Formats: sequence, C-alpha cells, structure tokens
Amino acid sequence: MSPKDTIDDSSRTKPVDKILLGPGPTNIDERVKMALSREPMSHLDPDFFIILDNISELLRKIFQTENSTTFAISGTGSSGMEMSMANILEENDRILVLKNGVFGERMSDVASRYGADIIEMNVDWGKSFNQEDVIKKIKSISNLKAVSIVHAETSTGILQDLNYIGEYLKNTDIIFIVDTVTSLSGVEIQTDDWGIDVCYSGTQKCLSVPPGLSPITFSDKALKKIKRRNTKIPSWYLDLNMLMNYWGSERIYHHTAPVNMLFALHEGLKICHEEGLQNRFTRHKENGDYFDLKLQEMGIMPFVDKTKYGSLPMLKSIFIPQGIDDSSFRKNLLSKHNIEIGGGLGHTKGKIWRIGIMGYNSRKELIDNLFNVLGPYIV
Amino acid sequence: MSPKDTIDDSSRTKPVDKILLGPGPTNIDERVKMALSREPMSHLDPDFFIILDNISELLRKIFQTENSTTFAISGTGSSGMEMSMANILEENDRILVLKNGVFGERMSDVASRYGADIIEMNVDWGKSFNQEDVIKKIKSISNLKAVSIVHAETSTGILQDLNYIGEYLKNTDIIFIVDTVTSLSGVEIQTDDWGIDVCYSGTQKCLSVPPGLSPITFSDKALKKIKRRNTKIPSWYLDLNMLMNYWGSERIYHHTAPVNMLFALHEGLKICHEEGLQNRFTRHKENGDYFDLKLQEMGIMPFVDKTKYGSLPMLKSIFIPQGIDDSSFRKNLLSKHNIEIGGGLGHTKGKIWRIGIMGYNSRKELIDNLFNVLGPYIV
Repeated sequence: MSPKDTIDDSSRTKPVDKILLGPGPTNIDERVKMALSREPMSHLDPDFFIILDNISELLRKIFQTENSTTFAISGTGSSGMEMSMANILEENDRILVLKNGVFGERMSDVASRYGADIIEMNVDWGKSFNQEDVIKKIKSISNLKAVSIVHAETSTGILQDLNYIGEYLKNTDIIFIVDTVTSLSGVEIQTDDWGIDVCYSGTQKCLSVPPGLSPITFSDKALKKIKRRNTKIPSWYLDLNMLMNYWGSERIYHHTAPVNMLFALHEGLKICHEEGLQNRFTRHKENGDYFDLKLQEMGIMPFVDKTKYGSLPMLKSIFIPQGIDDSSFRKNLLSKHNIEIGGGLGHTKGKIWRIGIMGYNSRKELIDNLFNVLGPYIV
Repeated sequence: MSPKDTIDDSSRTKPVDKILLGPGPTNIDERVKMALSREPMSHLDPDFFIILDNISELLRKIFQTENSTTFAISGTGSSGMEMSMANILEENDRILVLKNGVFGERMSDVASRYGADIIEMNVDWGKSFNQEDVIKKIKSISNLKAVSIVHAETSTGILQDLNYIGEYLKNTDIIFIVDTVTSLSGVEIQTDDWGIDVCYSGTQKCLSVPPGLSPITFSDKALKKIKRRNTKIPSWYLDLNMLMNYWGSERIYHHTAPVNMLFALHEGLKICHEEGLQNRFTRHKENGDYFDLKLQEMGIMPFVDKTKYGSLPMLKSIFIPQGIDDSSFRKNLLSKHNIEIGGGLGHTKGKIWRIGIMGYNSRKELIDNLFNVLGPYIV
C-alpha cells in the first residue's frame, strides 16, 4: 500500500516554528521537549509511580493546597470541566453557574448534560462579577449543591476575584468549582485559603506544556459529597474513585496513563518551581503591564477596562485596530511573520483579538517583536 | 519556594530505557520521538489542519474504511470505549455486550453508566465466541440497539472473529461496536466489509505511539442513529457532533487539541504505511508464531488453546511457569534486566503473564532476548 498518491506529505519536512501568542498552546522549553521524547515506560512501572507522586506534590504547591486528591486527568482542560460536573452533580442537583464568557457558557452546557438544575447569573462579556452580588444570589437560592465560576475567562481576558465567595461557601454545604485553565501558575490561586473545592486547569497555558492533560484538585468536602452520591458517577473515564485507585497508593490499573505527556508535565512543573511561584507571578504581572503600556502608546483599546475590572496578565483581549481586516491580517501574521494571535469567540469574533503572553512566552522581547510587526499597520 | 526538600528528583537524570514487552505502551521509533518533541503549533493553524486531515486519511486506510467520520479522540483507548457508548446509547436502550475478559466487562460497566438495558453473553476467559451462537442470541432479543464486542481481548490474548456477526448486523438496524485497541495495524480489521459501525482503538499498542489518543471511526448507519437521538449526548467532551465540527471542514474550536501527541500519531501512521499494512500483519503473525514455538520448546503452556480459538499474534498470555513467584519475578525482570512483561488481570492474577510483541517491538531479537533471560528460571 502506498499512501503517497493521496497524502500530502509536506509536514514531513520540519515546518517553520511559530511564535505562539494565541490563547494557548504556547511555545515550550527545550527541557519539556526532551521529556516528551523520552522512551516510554509502563504506566505500572514503580519508576513511573515516582513521577506520578512528584506531579501530585508539585501540583499541590501550585494549586496552594494540602488536598491529597491532586493529579492530572488524561484529557485536555475541558475534560477537567467535565470531570468536575460529572463527579459532583447528580440529576436535578441545583448549581449556580456564573457566566461572563465562553467558558462560563460551556460550564452550563456541561452541567446540563448531567441533568443538573441550572441557575445562571450573567454579567456582560468583559466584566467581572461583584463578589457581594454573587454571595447575595447564593443566599437567595435554596438547596444549592454547587457554584461554578471561571477564574480567568480566556474568551474575554477577565480575572475574577474569588476569595470572598469562597470564604462564604466554606461555612456552607455548597461545593465551589473553579476553572483555572488559563491562570494556573500565572497568577495567585489559593485553593485552600479561598475555599475552592474543585479546581481544574490545563497544561498548555502558563505551565507551557503541550495540551492534553488537565491538572485537578478536590477538597475533602468535595470528596465527601462524591462518596454520598446516590447514583454511579456517569462517566467511567472520569470516575474520580477509580482514578484515585490508580493515582493513590493502591496503584490499581484504570486506563493506560499517557506516560510521555506526564513526563512533559513533570518537567514543566519542575521548571515552574525552579523559577519560584511568586517570581513567576511577578514575571507575568510585569509583562502584562508592559503589554498594556505598549498598547496605550500605540493607541489600541483594551477590551477589559482595567480601572474597573481585573485584567489577566497572561491573556490580553484588545479591540482590533481600525482599518484592519481580522481574518486576513491574522492569516498574514501567521504565514509571513510566523506569529499566532487569537481571534474573538462568539459575538466578539471580528471585533477583538486575544493575545497570550503565557508561561514560557511571557517575555518582553516577544511583546516588542509583536508590536514592531503591528506598528506599520496601525493608523 | 524550593521543592528540593520534598521532591525526589531522581527522574531528572535520564532513567534507563526499558524494553516494554507488557500489554502496552511499547517502545517507539526515533521518528515518533522527534515528532513528539516538535515545537507546538496552534490547534487552529491551517498547517495543523493538514496534519489532522492526513491523520484521518491514514486512519481510514488502517481501519479499512471509507467512513468520513474517522479521527482520534483526545483521550486514551478507554475514552474510545466511553465515546462509543455515550454517543450510541440513550437511557433504556438495549445492548448486547459480549464478555470474555476485562475489556468486555468494562464495556458493560461503561454502558450501565449511560442507563442502558444490558444483556450479557459470556464465555470463559481464554475462549472466544462462536459467531453462530452470537447471531442466534442476537435474533432472540427484541428491540436491540447495539452489540459490542472486543476484537483483541488484551486480558486473555483471545482474537475474536467478527465477520459473520457483522454481516448479519448489516441487514438490521442494530449498531455493531468493536474494540480494536490491541489489534489495530497488527491484524486484519476490515471495518466496512465486516459491517462494523463504531470501531475504536488506542495508540500505544501496534501503532507504537505513546498512550493518550484513541483512533475511532463511525459508519453512516451509526451517524444516522446519533442524529436521531431524543436526548443530548451526555458527555460534552466526547460529543461526536461537536468533535466533527472541528475535525471536519468547519474547523470550529471545541477543545484545544493535544497537538504534540497528534504530531506523534501522524508520524506513527506514516511509518505504518511505509511498511505497508499487509507486511505489518505478516510481521506480527511471524513473530507471534515464533514466540509460540519458543514457548513450546521451553515447555511453557499458553493460556489460549490455539487449536480451538484465535490467538493474538501481538499479545501472548502464558501460564506462569511452575516454581516462579509472579510478583517478585516480574519486579526483578524489570529492575535487573530492564524488561517489562504484564501480569494477569482479575482472576488470572498470579496465574498468567501477558507478553506484548506489538508494533515497533514485534521483533525476533526481543523474543530471543526474553527467552534467554527466562531460560535459567524454567525448571
């Protein structure tokens, strides 16, 4: 059989490396590449169990939690969202979903598939929730099982404060589910202190590991809720109890762990800790501020009003400068300058760009380079 | 923050490469390693879409199908099983699950979580189903929506013939779901000719790509069934319609595709086709037969009676030779000789070993090496 007649084989030659300034994936460190290309080992090899334990321990430090149930799901960040809902919710369970962008909307879609009774709270895209308003709303709802919110809305660039909501929920029976896909290791996340019960993330944002895994952590309060379920967890692949029989001390085979991706995550987490978590936050903050300054100098409007709302340092949403055609411009940027930036989602499509300066790519020279390329096109 | 006090950093130094003769993962080709460690690109980059199209096209050739809906799920082989059940089944739908090992049992567990009305047919582990008996059973069940079966039972080493069952089902409204996790590219699978409607696999077996993706294909008959569902597909992450909006021509963002794992799969598929599918089957057959011969010479009993049942060429289950302690022996084999072999699952634990000679590792010299090491321990 010769596939040569039908298969475009152009990718055989090494393609040009792109500078990834979209909403993820990012470029990755050489050490992560080395880890990815290691010889595989068995998912039941005692040497591999050491790596699993290290990953859990390093993730606990980044999530700032003591939760023993801290690991990485064998799926992308969205599988973390699905896992949270699948394990916490049973049919007709009431959940408050806070929606101010695509990922809040996705939470609602996912929860609906598990038969949840969904109550939504909305603010406009580009705005964050006032925590007092959220607490008032929570107080007004009877029999509430869970509240879910996005910490870093990748569709808008909004950073949502959570601490008061979590503090209030700590003294209730309600489970607090938080999406930190874009924020983890780029800004402060205090899982335990903020009262977060289920916190999930992705690998391809500030951790700068390729996409494919979802770090997640569950509080004891969440575990108790899951133990008291009346029905089986509806997803076999994302069944927390079975997964913890593997990630925990029993090491019972569930599915074949994606060993090479886990090598890569391990390396990415070590790099993160060698830099130091606070230093990493500072770097993201400084480069985010630097980006905003360049934006201002160039007269480009940010989508998020920083004077009123939290703005993500690692994901900048900006209005497309006047006179620029979104689609053709981004295509040219990618094909001629090898720079990727992201377009808007939903009703912001054609109106905003989303620019990621995350993890390995949170660097001044990449920001300078981008604005140097943009410069001539800005009127 | 210094993790050095608590984190075992031993994996930092390159660990010894293991010879992976368990039930997967296998060792991998240098070209697959190169692909894994490529610079990531955006999941929305037109260059990446070419790779996605190539993967689909190459998978179609391996599955021997014309199905346009052929792609790779962002999860391990088990996610393929879950996806099949989640998309085909609705609550109270009747499914016949054929069980003669762990993976048949898993099918039943997964289907039960989607509220299916499960009818089981069993034969002992180590035996295969007589196709005529299965067809009789199918004929005796009213309102049957699906039949699911494992082509290559990794827990026992049984190869299940499917062609007559599929041929019968072709002329019915019943969906035929087949697990080919261990068999794909190692033995013949004629998805279209055998009337298979949903066929899924894994990457870490005969394809010799690290674990983390699940190749899958759906027939038009299956697609029609999914379109006629009364209820939403219960899993957002595994919703076929949404996934095909991304893998198909529309390229609508669903989740961030695991780009580096897909680079690796692409390369693994190209290697497979360069060898030629029939040549690859022949290689697996010859090395499987060679293994059986060595086994006979050494007086070790196979678990599968080859004179009565189909025996997998790529996954050999054998009775543990007398006088050998399972656990300590396999530990020593791994730590002293760097060779991994698999233990038994379920009630075969401590009784059988499972030895994989799959894909990249289906090689005479590895078989010779294994038996040379085993020799002195066999009474």
